[in-house]
Amino acid sequence: MRLLLINGPNLNLLGSREPSIYGSETLDAIENRVKKKAEREGVSLESFQSNSEGALVDRIHMALGKVDGLLINAGAYTHTSVALRDALLSTAIPYVELHLSNTFAREDFRQKSLLADCAIGVVSGFGGMSYELAFDGMMEYLQALK
Amino acid sequence: MRLLLINGPNLNLLGSREPSIYGSETLDAIENRVKKKAEREGVSLESFQSNSEGALVDRIHMALGKVDGLLINAGAYTHTSVALRDALLSTAIPYVELHLSNTFAREDFRQKSLLADCAIGVVSGFGGMSYELAFDGMMEYLQALK
Amino acid sequence: MRLLLINGPNLNLLGSREPSIYGSETLDAIENRVKKKAEREGVSLESFQSNSEGALVDRIHMALGKVDGLLINAGAYTHTSVALRDALLSTAIPYVELHLSNTFAREDFRQKSLLADCAIGVVSGFGGMSYELAFDGMMEYLQALK
Amino acid sequence: MRLLLINGPNLNLLGSREPSIYGSETLDAIENRVKKKAEREGVSLESFQSNSEGALVDRIHMALGKVDGLLINAGAYTHTSVALRDALLSTAIPYVELHLSNTFAREDFRQKSLLADCAIGVVSGFGGMSYELAFDGMMEYLQALK
Amino acid sequence: MRLLLINGPNLNLLGSREPSIYGSETLDAIENRVKKKAEREGVSLESFQSNSEGALVDRIHMALGKVDGLLINAGAYTHTSVALRDALLSTAIPYVELHLSNTFAREDFRQKSLLADCAIGVVSGFGGMSYELAFDGMMEYLQALK
Amino acid sequence: MRLLLINGPNLNLLGSREPSIYGSETLDAIENRVKKKAEREGVSLESFQSNSEGALVDRIHMALGKVDGLLINAGAYTHTSVALRDALLSTAIPYVELHLSNTFAREDFRQKSLLADCAIGVVSGFGGMSYELAFDGMMEYLQALK
Amino acid sequence: MRLLLINGPNLNLLGSREPSIYGSETLDAIENRVKKKAEREGVSLESFQSNSEGALVDRIHMALGKVDGLLINAGAYTHTSVALRDALLSTAIPYVELHLSNTFAREDFRQKSLLADCAIGVVSGFGGMSYELAFDGMMEYLQALK
Amino acid sequence: MRLLLINGPNLNLLGSREPSIYGSETLDAIENRVKKKAEREGVSLESFQSNSEGALVDRIHMALGKVDGLLINAGAYTHTSVALRDALLSTAIPYVELHLSNTFAREDFRQKSLLADCAIGVVSGFGGMSYELAFDGMMEYLQALK
Amino acid sequence: MRLLLINGPNLNLLGSREPSIYGSETLDAIENRVKKKAEREGVSLESFQSNSEGALVDRIHMALGKVDGLLINAGAYTHTSVALRDALLSTAIPYVELHLSNTFAREDFRQKSLLADCAIGVVSGFGGMSYELAFDGMMEYLQALK
Amino acid sequence: MRLLLINGPNLNLLGSREPSIYGSETLDAIENRVKKKAEREGVSLESFQSNSEGALVDRIHMALGKVDGLLINAGAYTHTSVALRDALLSTAIPYVELHLSNTFAREDFRQKSLLADCAIGVVSGFGGMSYELAFDGMMEYLQALK
Amino acid sequence: MRLLLINGPNLNLLGSREPSIYGSETLDAIENRVKKKAEREGVSLESFQSNSEGALVDRIHMALGKVDGLLINAGAYTHTSVALRDALLSTAIPYVELHLSNTFAREDFRQKSLLADCAIGVVSGFGGMSYELAFDGMMEYLQALK
Amino acid sequence: MRLLLINGPNLNLLGSREPSIYGSETLDAIENRVKKKAEREGVSLESFQSNSEGALVDRIHMALGKVDGLLINAGAYTHTSVALRDALLSTAIPYVELHLSNTFAREDFRQKSLLADCAIGVVSGFGGMSYELAFDGMMEYLQALK
Repeated sequence: MRLLLINGPNLNLLGSREPSIYGSETLDAIENRVKKKAEREGVSLESFQSNSEGALVDRIHMALGKVDGLLINAGAYTHTSVALRDALLSTAIPYVELHLSNTFAREDFRQKSLLADCAIGVVSGFGGMSYELAFDGMMEYLQALK
Repeated sequence: MRLLLINGPNLNLLGSREPSIYGSETLDAIENRVKKKAEREGVSLESFQSNSEGALVDRIHMALGKVDGLLINAGAYTHTSVALRDALLSTAIPYVELHLSNTFAREDFRQKSLLADCAIGVVSGFGGMSYELAFDGMMEYLQALK
Repeated sequence: MRLLLINGPNLNLLGSREPSIYGSETLDAIENRVKKKAEREGVSLESFQSNSEGALVDRIHMALGKVDGLLINAGAYTHTSVALRDALLSTAIPYVELHLSNTFAREDFRQKSLLADCAIGVVSGFGGMSYELAFDGMMEYLQALK
Repeated sequence: MRLLLINGPNLNLLGSREPSIYGSETLDAIENRVKKKAEREGVSLESFQSNSEGALVDRIHMALGKVDGLLINAGAYTHTSVALRDALLSTAIPYVELHLSNTFAREDFRQKSLLADCAIGVVSGFGGMSYELAFDGMMEYLQALK
Repeated sequence: MRLLLINGPNLNLLGSREPSIYGSETLDAIENRVKKKAEREGVSLESFQSNSEGALVDRIHMALGKVDGLLINAGAYTHTSVALRDALLSTAIPYVELHLSNTFAREDFRQKSLLADCAIGVVSGFGGMSYELAFDGMMEYLQALK
Repeated sequence: MRLLLINGPNLNLLGSREPSIYGSETLDAIENRVKKKAEREGVSLESFQSNSEGALVDRIHMALGKVDGLLINAGAYTHTSVALRDALLSTAIPYVELHLSNTFAREDFRQKSLLADCAIGVVSGFGGMSYELAFDGMMEYLQALK
Repeated sequence: MRLLLINGPNLNLLGSREPSIYGSETLDAIENRVKKKAEREGVSLESFQSNSEGALVDRIHMALGKVDGLLINAGAYTHTSVALRDALLSTAIPYVELHLSNTFAREDFRQKSLLADCAIGVVSGFGGMSYELAFDGMMEYLQALK
Repeated sequence: MRLLLINGPNLNLLGSREPSIYGSETLDAIENRVKKKAEREGVSLESFQSNSEGALVDRIHMALGKVDGLLINAGAYTHTSVALRDALLSTAIPYVELHLSNTFAREDFRQKSLLADCAIGVVSGFGGMSYELAFDGMMEYLQALK
Repeated sequence: MRLLLINGPNLNLLGSREPSIYGSETLDAIENRVKKKAEREGVSLESFQSNSEGALVDRIHMALGKVDGLLINAGAYTHTSVALRDALLSTAIPYVELHLSNTFAREDFRQKSLLADCAIGVVSGFGGMSYELAFDGMMEYLQALK
Repeated sequence: MRLLLINGPNLNLLGSREPSIYGSETLDAIENRVKKKAEREGVSLESFQSNSEGALVDRIHMALGKVDGLLINAGAYTHTSVALRDALLSTAIPYVELHLSNTFAREDFRQKSLLADCAIGVVSGFGGMSYELAFDGMMEYLQALK
Repeated sequence: MRLLLINGPNLNLLGSREPSIYGSETLDAIENRVKKKAEREGVSLESFQSNSEGALVDRIHMALGKVDGLLINAGAYTHTSVALRDALLSTAIPYVELHLSNTFAREDFRQKSLLADCAIGVVSGFGGMSYELAFDGMMEYLQALK
Repeated sequence: MRLLLINGPNLNLLGSREPSIYGSETLDAIENRVKKKAEREGVSLESFQSNSEGALVDRIHMALGKVDGLLINAGAYTHTSVALRDALLSTAIPYVELHLSNTFAREDFRQKSLLADCAIGVVSGFGGMSYELAFDGMMEYLQALK
């Protein structure tokens, strides 16, 4: 089983970025948490981060036929990018949407996700733990398909 | 550590209720999954289900000072009950909001949660697995507090 | 053939309640009208009234597998209760929505029904006669299914 | 007692028109059902159908002083015609609004009726039976006036 | 100078139609008032009434090149007919919009006119006198053009 | 018969103010037009202009018991002043709302009048002639009361 | 004179519930304040609290014919319960709406009351004192009726 | 293959009607362009224009079973006529919606089409050429069906 | 302790102004009621009324450092004046908002107060008694501060 | 070159008014800053402050033909006064809108300016420095006109 | 004559991407169709696809002075990119907006185009044929300019 | 002191881009104006322009710890980019938002800035001079911090 973890804009700054909202763990540390978990379960997990909407779309396209599931924290693009939504639907790879912070407790424009209605499910608000929960949810989903 | 799992209206019908949306597992089966998980981690977990908004409010009040965290699938009341929101805030017990189905893929009136902005986090769309993920998220949260 | 007639909040006051809107017939009198009609057609018809949303949900659950159709005047809960809607959909029993008064001639918040789009049909505005019309509509529907 | 049954645009196509929504009975068949019912009750019932808003307004004007009640399925004009509403109010003949399909289960623009708030009542969703129910509701109303 | 007075749907019923709103004068009587006024000022004034949107559009087209100004009480079509608006703009004949009743004191859907923003001006609420005021306003406008 | 003509903010600049919208006639010239008309009909007509909402309210209060009708061009306050509306209703003097320009052809915030629904009627778009039409409409109204 | 004081959901927690918003006085203490006041004025005052919408409706029904006025702090149900509104209107007992906190300073969904437009008046924001003010307002109202 | 070209209200005035928006070609000239094109491709193409919504509905009904596709420029009725939409769906003949002007560059009320979502496709803004493009699009669609 | 009572536009007409809404007591009479109450409690209470928004702002400024609390019935300005809100916040004197009529039972534009969210509390609907209740609420508030 | 600096309601309180939002500099101090700057550039600059909308309109009228540009901090009237907008447009004097605080970071009702779309430009958020920036922007604009 | 065909995000996946919506033809195949058409008419046509908003803006800038017209299928960016709109307006090259699918039959967020109101025209819903129709429409437009 | 000047999409075309809106000065010329000003004040000022949202985010990240303030004209991204907003907040570098044109005088979608509420302040409408004013405002802000 092969998974791809995608992180959108500004997540590269994790740790230094508004720690009261996003915590003090770096993206590397979080990715390692999930990768170790994946390893333990015999799953290959690659990760990719970009601040560019186009590069994220490109990376999702590249996953076509090579990946069984996507874990995606699209950050700000969650709320504005129809292109990402279309990329996810175009490849038809099942995905879980995840967020570090509880987006429901934040600005109005973060209340609408352009990705959520086509996702398997959504995990929001558990900091770095959101990634592990999204991984577990994805695993359950993929195993149920078999 | 003591947790309380609260299930709102119509969840008692799980298994027979619209299985294409909610799956075929019964509420008992799901609660047992989470209780076993809790047991393994040395956590006491009680559960409560009611179709009555008032009874749910009463049960939350009773948890005051007796419970460290709440896992709540408020079902339909998620979208209509200011009273439940007030009950949760009144007791100030941290809670995780969870849903079996991906509410973002459903009717317009299910897009708004009156509970989400004050929750630790939200888990939505993973069927019975949503309960386990919510439990894991809550554990992480409580352990970080220590 | 077995039918269940459900009446929501404040309908127990019929006769004394705002007679210029709801007429001066009591709920008992109206239920008897419909029950006689049912008897004549060899149909068993039970009735239930409650002011509690939860009790109405409970009663609908109890009808699962025991009733062929529901006639429901949900009163105020028509406009606010997602829980009732979910209960009706969970049991998948066909139902007719009915109202004594013409709800379209009343306050804005009565213009939206959370039950109507999943009903067989809606009858509104004919006073106690609305119950008989709903009964007739339900009978036609059930006979067409055979 | 004299009633007039008015059918609006596209109802002449009944039977061939989207049968999954409107059923396979023709307008003639439905009108005959109601006319027989009227005959049995000693009531004269004429019917009129037109696809033209203006012709419908004209026909309603002609009913002034000659008709005790109107049964009207205004079809698409239900949702767009202030002129029909004004015609009905101008003549001050009591009317029942009726629909074959359950309009509440359909497009957003069918959720608003420009006629309903001034009608005696509304019957919606029972196919051809809607006409009979509307007839019965009207009879009850007219008899109560005596 | 040649003027055309156009009256829309239901105005043929004036006198009998909801007299508390529209007064008890007939359309004939009102038209005669304005025609006499026109005669006194040496202006030819024809009038036309129809309940059909299409017939009103046709009549406006016929006025092209034959009429210097239009006085129009479009009745219900004021609020719903883009076709009438387009007819008026297509012929480019200057027009005054007028209403018997004060439309601003009535239903929400009468608050929006599809004709008013392209009119010379609007007169509303003076009963039959609205026609005379509209005539006077039109005369002033046409004389200022010379 | 005694009338009061009230002009709101910026109307003192008439003639120099945006002549493409408001024309080149001064307020004095317009008031004289109406006063002459009033004189011819044996009616006393006073006029008042102020840029201050409070002064306009004061002036309307002073008219209580001394004036049979008000002609009011409230200018910008038409769209923002609940205080003026309350002043007009408090004195219960009948009034006609008038505008030089066709407000329906202008900015969105000019589409709503806080005065129109309680006026006898509204005249809009005929330049200085609007004042004369408003006067004529008022006269007709007052004579019909006798 | 007999009054009934009704308290809605979560008000039983007063004193412990979010004291920065609701103060530290218990419901008992507040009810005693009002009861003493009532006693001094020779008025009988009963009180009732419930977290259940249905129980509140039931209690209001029971007051029919036994109570001259209601003081109601419906808490969260103020903003969501059409059933409570209908119960109050059904019994036609005059009532005063009251709130401990200033609801206008709180969440958007607390800005709309389903009860306020049919109340005698509303008192909001004075903590426990709101109950005494509501009592005084009710007394004035009832005495003026005599 | 048989096609029907339908033109709605005011299109008969083409050439004289607001040439800055609609161009100076007459409807006859445009219809001839398309008819010649149809002839070249061995397709029969009839055309129909009316200013009456009802007549357009009637004409569409007549096409049932006699026409393989409709090209429709419904003009103003595009934005207001549910009856036309229902007529098109009732006959289930595939259709292309077309406009001379670019409706997206015009008034707000022209931004919504009641026909577009059920059309094969939409062509807007190319003047008379829109008719030829719509014809070509229809031909491609019908040939793909074979 | 020094209080200032401020009355906004049109309240000078009390007694003669729409008595069915505002009662027949004059402002003088009401102010005397409150002043007597203040006297009894050893509090100095001045009052001020103006129809001018600017004069009300000026008067509030003058209270800076001289007054411990404000009782304000801003009348129509409640719903339109950001300037009054800013004046109240600029001086930071605590204030109670009050209304004679129950504003919640009136026009839509009276449903929004620009002052309420920053007030201590709001009293609405008790006629002249609203002033006394506001006074009592203010006293309670000021005494709790000590 | 002659400029006029206009300050709206509550700005006279600067220094004492909510210093966390508006800073602790007085209006005098700020005006002196700008006047010195003007002097250095050989420009005459007068200033005017009022809390009255009418007085501000009057002052702007007086500037007609005597002033080359206006710097205006209309305070609360920015968001509510169509009269000020009309006054500015009536005189056709170019103006710069300025604010001490960053209005975009404040209440919803401060997000809309009725003056901004007709201004040369807008400066917001720089405290007293906003006045100097507005002055510089105006100078650049006027010099470019030469 | 030189044209540029621009394809936005996810169009590179054509053929494999959701074929039920977008068809099974690849982008290459479609581009070849149009290029052959262009060749036959002696027009040079280049094409460009990118998933990056910035790269699309860059490419449009490069076309400045080198291209007579643009055919653009901006895909998801149609609905979200003000930057693309600005790029098109900045270069002032005339363009036709085109879509493979009928966007009017899809999600709400696809109902708004940020490009359409400034385009020559729009073609939507004809699959690969949309490109040819857009080409033909552009040719007609450019030839009319000569 | 080190400042960074960021220019968003299409600003590279300045001078040739819609000169009636944006003026005829090139971006180079404008940047030089500001750099000279910076030099005179002993401040280092770098500049960066990109049409890519991702590249702008990257550049802002690079400024972390190296820059004391940002001047940003985000162009079209002002209205659509949550990613830019997050980048600015992530680095916590104070910034001034600026625009060449008066965005308040333009399209509806330009009325909302996603950056303004977190900026120090906003300067809009002064052409190239906006950059200098933004620089001056930033300097004042930074000097006040010392």
